[in-house]
This record gives sequence, C-alpha cells and structure tokens, in this order.
Amino acid sequence: MTDAPHRIDLAVIPGDGIGPEVTAEAVKVLRAAVGDDVELSLTDYELGAEHWLATGETLPDATLEQLRRHDAILFGAVGAAPGDTRIPSGLIEREFLLKLRFSLDHFVNLRPSKLYPGVASPLADPGVIDFVVVREGTEGPYTGNGGTLRGGTPHEVATEVSLNTAHGVERVVRDAFARASGRRKKLTLVHKHNVLVYAGHLWKRTVEAVAAEFPDVHHDYLHVDAAMIFLVTDPSRFDVIVTDNLFGDIVTDLAAAVSGGIGLAASANLNMDRTAPSMFEPVHGSAPDIAGQQVADPTAAILSGALLLRHLGLDAHAQRIEQAVEQDIASRSGARRTSAIGDAIAAAVS
Amino acid sequence: MTDAPHRIDLAVIPGDGIGPEVTAEAVKVLRAAVGDDVELSLTDYELGAEHWLATGETLPDATLEQLRRHDAILFGAVGAAPGDTRIPSGLIEREFLLKLRFSLDHFVNLRPSKLYPGVASPLADPGVIDFVVVREGTEGPYTGNGGTLRGGTPHEVATEVSLNTAHGVERVVRDAFARASGRRKKLTLVHKHNVLVYAGHLWKRTVEAVAAEFPDVHHDYLHVDAAMIFLVTDPSRFDVIVTDNLFGDIVTDLAAAVSGGIGLAASANLNMDRTAPSMFEPVHGSAPDIAGQQVADPTAAILSGALLLRHLGLDAHAQRIEQAVEQDIASRSGARRTSAIGDAIAAAVS
Ligand SMILES: CC(C)[C@H](C(=O)O)[C@@H](O)C(=O)O
Ligand SMILES: CC(C)[C@H](C(=O)O)[C@@H](O)C(=O)O
Repeated sequence: MTDAPHRIDLAVIPGDGIGPEVTAEAVKVLRAAVGDDVELSLTDYELGAEHWLATGETLPDATLEQLRRHDAILFGAVGAAPGDTRIPSGLIEREFLLKLRFSLDHFVNLRPSKLYPGVASPLADPGVIDFVVVREGTEGPYTGNGGTLRGGTPHEVATEVSLNTAHGVERVVRDAFARASGRRKKLTLVHKHNVLVYAGHLWKRTVEAVAAEFPDVHHDYLHVDAAMIFLVTDPSRFDVIVTDNLFGDIVTDLAAAVSGGIGLAASANLNMDRTAPSMFEPVHGSAPDIAGQQVADPTAAILSGALLLRHLGLDAHAQRIEQAVEQDIASRSGARRTSAIGDAIAAAVS
Repeated sequence: MTDAPHRIDLAVIPGDGIGPEVTAEAVKVLRAAVGDDVELSLTDYELGAEHWLATGETLPDATLEQLRRHDAILFGAVGAAPGDTRIPSGLIEREFLLKLRFSLDHFVNLRPSKLYPGVASPLADPGVIDFVVVREGTEGPYTGNGGTLRGGTPHEVATEVSLNTAHGVERVVRDAFARASGRRKKLTLVHKHNVLVYAGHLWKRTVEAVAAEFPDVHHDYLHVDAAMIFLVTDPSRFDVIVTDNLFGDIVTDLAAAVSGGIGLAASANLNMDRTAPSMFEPVHGSAPDIAGQQVADPTAAILSGALLLRHLGLDAHAQRIEQAVEQDIASRSGARRTSAIGDAIAAAVS
C-alpha cells in the first residue's frame, strides 16, 4: 500500500472512436470522487489511429518519456475503422498499446469480472460471478519474437515464439497470490502444461513454490480448454485466475462476456514495482461504428478510473465509485446518453 | 468422396477410465448401422495410462505400424486418475494421443457443434447452434518445439515455438472452405494476427488466396478473443470456423460447452489425403471418477462413429446414426445406463 497522494499528475490518452467520449466521463467521475481531497492535474496526449494517419507517429520516444513522468495513465481506446486499409493491420495495437505495456513494465494486467445485480448475463444460470484475472502483461507469445522464412512461397514457414522467464512468471504469480489472500483465498492457474511443457512447467513450478508463502490460499490448476467450460457452466468457482499473456487475453474476453459484456469490463495494466506509471483502460475497443453519438457505455472506463485510484492508494475513493456504479446499474432501465451516465455516477460520488 | 467400402478393418483403442464403456456402445451402434451392408472387422489395442503403468509403453513403433494398416481408428479416451503421480504429467497425451495425430498426419481435426433439440445449453438464449470447427491438427504450438534454459534457477527462460507452414495451413484452409461450400457457405478464420503477426499473416493470406477457389463461400475473420464473446452471445453466426491447433483446442471446448456439454461432442482426426487411417474420438476425457459404473454418456463416442462412417463414404449410414441420436436425445428424461443408451440408439438404426 502506498501513501494516499494529495496530487495526481494524470496522463490522459483518449484515443480513437468512442475513446474520447468514455474517457471524458471517467475523468468527470474521477474529479467528483476525489473532490477537494486530491488535486487532479490532467495532460492530454493525442495518440492512436487518427493521430497516426495525421502524423505517421505511433508512440515517439519523446512522448513515451513524457508519459513516464506521470503518476498514472488513463487510456480510452485505439483502433482504425474496420475496412480502413490505410493502417497496416495490428500496427497501432503493437506500436502503441503493446509498446506502452512493455516499455512501462505493466506485468500485471488486472481484469476483474463481476456480475452486477441487474445486469443480464448470456448465461441461463450465472450464479454469483466475482473473480479477477491476473494476466501476465510483458512476455509469453506477445514478445514479437518469431519470423517468416520463404514468405509468400509454397514453402513458407512462420514461427511465433513464446518467451517466459522465471522473473516474469514469479512476480505475477506472487501478485496473484497476494490478491487471492485479500479475497476468497482461492487461486487457479490456467495454462496448457500437458502440451506447452516448457512454459507450462515453469508456471506450475512457480505456483507451487510461491504457494508456500501463502498457506492461507488454496490453489488449483485448469488447462485452458477446461477453463472455457467452467467459465460458462460454473463461473462462481473462480476467485483469482493467474495466467499468461495470450491465455489471459482469451479468458478475459470470455469472462467479460459472461459477466455482462465488455461494456462493463475495466482493466489495469500495473507496474507493481512502481518504476513507471500504470495504465487504466476499458477492455472494449474503439467501436468506430458508434463513435461520436453519445451512445457508448462509459461504465468500463469509469470503473477503470476506480482501479486507478485504488492503485494510487485511494481505496475509499475507489470504492465510492464502484458502489455508485453498482447502484447506477441496478437502476438502469431505458437507454441513456454517454454523458448522462457519467453525470449520474459523478453526482452519486460527489 | 471415396467409394463406399464393403469391409471396414477397424482398430479400436478403448483406453482408460470411461473409454472402454463408451467405445463398446459406439461399436454396438456401428454394427447395427452397417448391418449386412458392410463387414466390420475389429482389432482391439490396449494402450493408454493403465497400459503404460503395466508395461512402460506409450505407443511402440511396431504398434503404430500395425495401426497404420487399418481403415480407421476408433478411440475412447486416455488419462490417469487425477492425483496419480506415477505418470509424468502430459506424458500419455503427448506420447500417445499427439503422437498418433502427428504420425498419421491428421491435419483436419473436425469438431462439429450442434445444439440438439431437448438439450439444455448453459446459455439463456442459445438460438440455433450448428457449426463445425476445422482445427489444424499437425502444427502450430503443438509441435513440441521449445526448451528451457537455466531450468529451476531464478534465471530460467522457457520457450514454446509455434510452427506454421504454407503446406500445413493451406490444406486445412482448403478443407474448411470445401466443408463451408457444402453447408451454409460461411467461413470464419479465428486467429490473433494483430499480435501473432507471422503466423497470423500466413493464415490470413492463405484464407484470402483459397477464397478465390470458393466464390460461393462468404468469409470473415475474428480475433480469438472476440470469438469467445460471439460463442456465448451469438453462436448461430458461425457455420465453419477454421483455426490453428491451440486456438482450436480452446474454441472447441467452449463450443462443446455452449452446445450441451462435452458428453455430446464428437470429433474426427482426419488425414484427408488418405495416406494413413483417420481417428475418431469423443472430445471428453477418461473421467476416472465415474469409470466402470455405467453412468457415462456414450453419445459423443457414438457420434464419433457416425463421423467415421461418413469419412469412409458411408454417408447414409452416418446420417442414420445422427438421426437416431437426435431422436434419442429428444426423448431423454431420467438417467439411463451407458449400455441402455447404446441399446436404444442401436435398435433405432438397425
Ligand atoms: C488490442 C490487443 C493487442 C489487446 C491484447 O491482445 O492484449 C486487446 O485484445 C486486449 O485484450 O487488451
Ligand atoms: C489431451 C490434449 C492433448 C488434447 C489437445 O490439447 O488436443 C485434448 O484437449 C483435445 O482437445 O483433444
């Protein structure tokens, strides 16, 4: 736990599509939640697909260095409109989003899944859903290692290399155990060690080793395919899931779907060593089809703001946002504009 | 389409746990379905975890050569009882099951998902679910490539290498397009090309190229994380999914879960060049906890038998099994013994 700050120097990256709209509401709610307790200083950064189209820049080194100096980063969404062929596929994702996660050593990609009262799940009998996924954020199959031999010929070979280190696995596993210890004391490792033996055994051995430091936490293991089944048949079995970068990507979208959709799913890219700012973002993308119409749900962005406050030691303020969101969701009936949702939650936390 | 055979020389590998029970029912139904049309010659092979414990053998070369001479392989399930630490984790899976798939070049791992009338889905509003996943079966992250450096030390590095070839991708993509052309004419590639750029681009380019041969088939693309969401919110959007070995493993367990559970999920490991026998197996495992009690559902094994007949050119016989299963499922009420389910379906196809 860090000391609660009196001033937060926040970088805001609204991004593309619905990013600016939902980020504006998250900022509105953050301001209301901290009130006079904390001085909130904001710096906007224009980055993303639109910015790349205008300037050819994804994330210049100078901008990265500026971002490093902030206490935290609030990020909306980036992404070109589907079918916009001017942007090489995946370029913004890799050169902006993944570059930030890797450069700022966001080794804990935290994604809570909670089915709020009043939210419809696609599951017939969801039960209580309340778990967090601790997804490794800086290695695994996301390192960009791999290559192409004889590309474009009938003899092409393409490789992807998953890199996993004791350092990288241990720190995220320890973080996950600590979170489980503060929750319902159950940790589930999700991997595929019967096939991916080298990485799998590193993960399994590490969980066994770190478990000794947390005798109060019960831990089990699921192959990623079996985890799929439990996520739709018995999601309440989960408390904390720890998994690698790619399995975490897959598991968290399914987790978001069963707990009411990515419109509500918040996430935090955490540097738990605090050697660089952490970044907070809704799991959803830029949704260009509904951008600028004030119809996007800002809840995921607002909840990401709560994760930001908690990471900075402002637990009570974070909780206030979460409670206000929970009450707002429970009372939702018709469609409201993006800003109206933000207004309502901001009013509730003021 | 091959000419319908008058004789099938079938290898049967019952395996462990519930494998023998469900395989016996699949054989019973196969016999009833082909009647006097086809002479069914069976050879049993004892293989699996129990066999390894007794002999130390997983899949000896001589046995593999014998298996090669059969027209097809019917396989139950293998796997040690959970907690049985005498068997190195994943050994049987890799040295037996994956070795068979790779040695016999089972490049199409076919897994249909169909929600039969009368079957409960965990989804509140599943709609019509009727799609097939064409999972690549001989490469990707399943090749066993990778390694460990400085194992067991704080400086350990573990790698997993996904190998993808133009040869391997093209043949499975072409197979998937051909299947889509014979169905609702829609193919969805599932991958993660925004992150796994080398493999992803090979898959994407191959789909674009092969699409030209199938102008009647509409194709689209989903990142694997987005596919998770659609599988629980709109599974009827899918007709044929084509994907790599690991994504296919993940997608098909979720697909089985939403369409009524792995107790009903059949699969075929197909060598479509017919240079070696194909293998037919239920997606479920050996379920040692319920083994030998005649409580396992043999439906997945029976439906795998139908896939076997279809692969050998006995379409009408395959369809008879599928219809009988569909009727049997629709009329299910209380629990029946494993053999009673087999008896009922066998009677219906005779
Ligand atoms: C956009 C993409 C690179 C990203 C990921 O794969 O991590 C996204 O899917 C996510 O989950 O945040
Ligand atoms: C047992 C295991 C190796 C196998 C796989 O991963 O392919 C299984 O999960 C399957 O889907 O058939």
